[in-house]
Amino acid sequence: MIPTQGRVTVDNTDVSIAADGTEYIIPSSDALLSAYDQIAIEAERQRHRGRQIVVVQGLGFVGSAVAAAIAAATDSAGEPKFFVIGIDLPTRTCYWKVAKINDGQVPISSPDRELDRLIRVAACESRNLVASTCQEVYGLADVIVVDVPLSVKERVVEDHQEVHIESRGFERAVRAVGRHMTEDALVLVETTVPAGTCERVALPILQEQRRKRGLSSRVYLAHAYERVMPGPRYVESIRKFWRSFAGIDERSADRARAFLEAFIETEDFPLCQLADTTSSELAKLLENTYRAVNIALIHEWTLLAEKMNVNLFDVIDGIRVRKGTHDNIRFPGFGVGGYCLTKDSLLAQWASQNLYHADVNLELTLHSLRVNYHMPRHTCDLMTEAADGSLAGKTVTVCGVAYLANVADSRNSPTEYLVRQLQEVGANVLVHDPCITVWQEMPSVEVKKDLDECLRCSHGVVLAVPHTEYVELTAADIGSHDLAFVVDAQNIIDDSMADQLWRSGLRVLGVGKGHWRKRGYQWLTRQRGAAA
Amino acid sequence: MIPTQGRVTVDNTDVSIAADGTEYIIPSSDALLSAYDQIAIEAERQRHRGRQIVVVQGLGFVGSAVAAAIAAATDSAGEPKFFVIGIDLPTRTCYWKVAKINDGQVPISSPDRELDRLIRVAACESRNLVASTCQEVYGLADVIVVDVPLSVKERVVEDHQEVHIESRGFERAVRAVGRHMTEDALVLVETTVPAGTCERVALPILQEQRRKRGLSSRVYLAHAYERVMPGPRYVESIRKFWRSFAGIDERSADRARAFLEAFIETEDFPLCQLADTTSSELAKLLENTYRAVNIALIHEWTLLAEKMNVNLFDVIDGIRVRKGTHDNIRFPGFGVGGYCLTKDSLLAQWASQNLYHADVNLELTLHSLRVNYHMPRHTCDLMTEAADGSLAGKTVTVCGVAYLANVADSRNSPTEYLVRQLQEVGANVLVHDPCITVWQEMPSVEVKKDLDECLRCSHGVVLAVPHTEYVELTAADIGSHDLAFVVDAQNIIDDSMADQLWRSGLRVLGVGKGHWRKRGYQWLTRQRGAAA
Repeated sequence: MIPTQGRVTVDNTDVSIAADGTEYIIPSSDALLSAYDQIAIEAERQRHRGRQIVVVQGLGFVGSAVAAAIAAATDSAGEPKFFVIGIDLPTRTCYWKVAKINDGQVPISSPDRELDRLIRVAACESRNLVASTCQEVYGLADVIVVDVPLSVKERVVEDHQEVHIESRGFERAVRAVGRHMTEDALVLVETTVPAGTCERVALPILQEQRRKRGLSSRVYLAHAYERVMPGPRYVESIRKFWRSFAGIDERSADRARAFLEAFIETEDFPLCQLADTTSSELAKLLENTYRAVNIALIHEWTLLAEKMNVNLFDVIDGIRVRKGTHDNIRFPGFGVGGYCLTKDSLLAQWASQNLYHADVNLELTLHSLRVNYHMPRHTCDLMTEAADGSLAGKTVTVCGVAYLANVADSRNSPTEYLVRQLQEVGANVLVHDPCITVWQEMPSVEVKKDLDECLRCSHGVVLAVPHTEYVELTAADIGSHDLAFVVDAQNIIDDSMADQLWRSGLRVLGVGKGHWRKRGYQWLTRQRGAAA
Repeated sequence: MIPTQGRVTVDNTDVSIAADGTEYIIPSSDALLSAYDQIAIEAERQRHRGRQIVVVQGLGFVGSAVAAAIAAATDSAGEPKFFVIGIDLPTRTCYWKVAKINDGQVPISSPDRELDRLIRVAACESRNLVASTCQEVYGLADVIVVDVPLSVKERVVEDHQEVHIESRGFERAVRAVGRHMTEDALVLVETTVPAGTCERVALPILQEQRRKRGLSSRVYLAHAYERVMPGPRYVESIRKFWRSFAGIDERSADRARAFLEAFIETEDFPLCQLADTTSSELAKLLENTYRAVNIALIHEWTLLAEKMNVNLFDVIDGIRVRKGTHDNIRFPGFGVGGYCLTKDSLLAQWASQNLYHADVNLELTLHSLRVNYHMPRHTCDLMTEAADGSLAGKTVTVCGVAYLANVADSRNSPTEYLVRQLQEVGANVLVHDPCITVWQEMPSVEVKKDLDECLRCSHGVVLAVPHTEYVELTAADIGSHDLAFVVDAQNIIDDSMADQLWRSGLRVLGVGKGHWRKRGYQWLTRQRGAAA
């Protein structure tokens, strides 16, 4: 196929730089077209071998893993069921994903080695996975899986009227599908979208494009939302997990069901068919909102519990014994990051106003998102308190950039908020993360790799992400430096370690750990007494 | 003992009228004192038989059931472990509970026959349960269990500064204990109180009263919150359920543990000891807040789902498959009633301001309580919509007064809100409930017992409580009348029954049942079109 990788730096728009720094030359239109011809021939060959042709649109966090899972599906004879064509845009920010997959590499950073294996096997051994930038490939597909992003303009809004979405990329992608798809291909939208999008946005676009091509038959359109979870079991979160789905009509639903059953272990994780695509779209938004609101609730009570010197973790342990009714109550924490929990609720609010012109505003939901957005401010307050009221001019180490333990994903990481706050109050901030090399969202901040070196010259340290490296820290590891304080935002330090640190002269505060104030940290009271 | 029951109506303050209408003459001071002497002699006799003396203060919904559970605790030989003395006030509103227990009857309305049995056996057969109004009985106790109410002035507040509590009854009760208790009795507070109350309110009161009596030793004080659940397994919710508790110090905690283990099946439902009484108090408030906030969240999304013609019950069924993370998400409903969920969060807000002078305000929590309070308004809106835009002059039947299925408990029932709203818009409201005879909170409203009679003369009906009588209604039961609409606020009517009702000419709407609008109920669209 096309030569994709070139290690020479080319200073023009024809280069796409991957997350790991590798540079890829974006092929010319001619090269793309000839690549398409090869893919078309291969698709025809695969179809003759009885395989369905699946195009996965969008090769980001979801699309690349879904493509791998579909390509890995085999029949009883061990033969692949599908020939999978991944497609993304021939742009600087997207093309490298196409190139990576054609090289047999995973285009996202994931600790799940199974994902590496599946992509390598499918692209290089079974050769039933290929990637392209040619929109013509939609015309080859029996099933087109839409995994392109649809996001919001701002993730923190003071008012429900301020919710705006970035839907043009999604609409363009659907338009491209409509322009090229065969008459009876199934379009399966996996993207998390404002509820009502399949019926009120995607369907009209597809119909219009098809009408222009003289196709008057009904469209096969369905929605099935993914529940992928970054981490070491990424592929399992696709293959071994429940799915809800719905079709725009019964025929579409039937085809979506058959397709999902082909690569998901639906015997153990039965499919849940909903009445219509709007229900499916709304379900995804609600389940993430449920999580977001419950996190916000506990944050509110974290602030209260700390004022009461209460260990909120113990309190919640005691509540969680009520299995079936109370065991989902969340624990205190540092903040909420990632792609979904920080925006999905906003898509529902937007849909209410813009797709349904309804007078329903999700005030409780939006308030919760604001609480979550500002959560790291409390950790900053604890650091300030531990630093005798001022961080100005003091060096602090922030442990953790990722929004989740042991992943290299920093999208909307609450650490960004914390670092900006610390910089604002004049602290000299060192940032450490064992998983992340380049902080995409704050590229000007260097991510340190040597924790000891950071701690050596710091006044204080905050544990913001429960990466294994931090969880395994001992009191000696921290106490051996000349630190004045430690703030634990993630329940990493237990009571006995806190006691040891206190005895070695450190001030120790923690999110949700009100009791630490009672356990011998009378210096706080004394400080306040002295200040008053 | 004292003759307690008199069926003659005496028109003065010496009569206490029970919930069932029975009138009891409140005994004179002399009679009370002689009754106390008898109790004291009996207590001494029981102590010689190796039984501990327990006084339960407050004989309402919790106290009476807890007294029964404690009295029922037996040792390996089948002998009662405790002699239990229930105490309440010699007032018109309280005395009848004392009289009921001494008659071997349950002073609250409960469908749990086990409660009847335990009280009858303990009061009339084992004779290890007696009730009194004499404060002197505190002086007989090894353990004093505080179950007196502590409530808020208003359950709906627009602002956190408007939260006020009614704590004088609680404080008076604790003062009485301090005035009479022996030096080393254990005081176990079960009342749901603002977090910090044991340490900052009860302890100082007890210390002051004891100091006046020349007792300088430390107080044994603990908090253990109950999780009683109205319904047919009321006693089980005390004996076979998890308990969290804490002592004001380790000695108090140890004694509280031993006491709780004596009447709770802690092998199957292990006790959870928390670090301090404030943690225990806060835990109770948080666990009910968790429930209240999650109900409010779903109400917000119910309004949205209905605008989208979505069946939110199906959507939530699909979300609940995620065991361990999402299976506690609530279903849509009519509203929130009862004693706890409507006020406990307010106690936390009050504690923040008044016991800790903290700048923490539980905005998300308070907003949720407001949402819940106003929830029945949506059911009223659905009824108005189903009645072609106006309920004025129309007769409607409201099915259900209780706040829970198959119980006779109407405290803070959302039906009250609905009925007031319906009356405001000029509807002629008939109220039916199979469990409740006299509606304590709205005594001017007659509670009908013949549903057919109500439906016969009604324009519409709303199912507000899932009492079994309503759940068992068939389409024929409803359709045989000349009703124009049915509104289902509690997921009582399924889709097939809704279809039948629609075919028989009724308009059917339901809370969370957006899909019913699509299933043939085009009259709504037509109505709107005609109105526009």
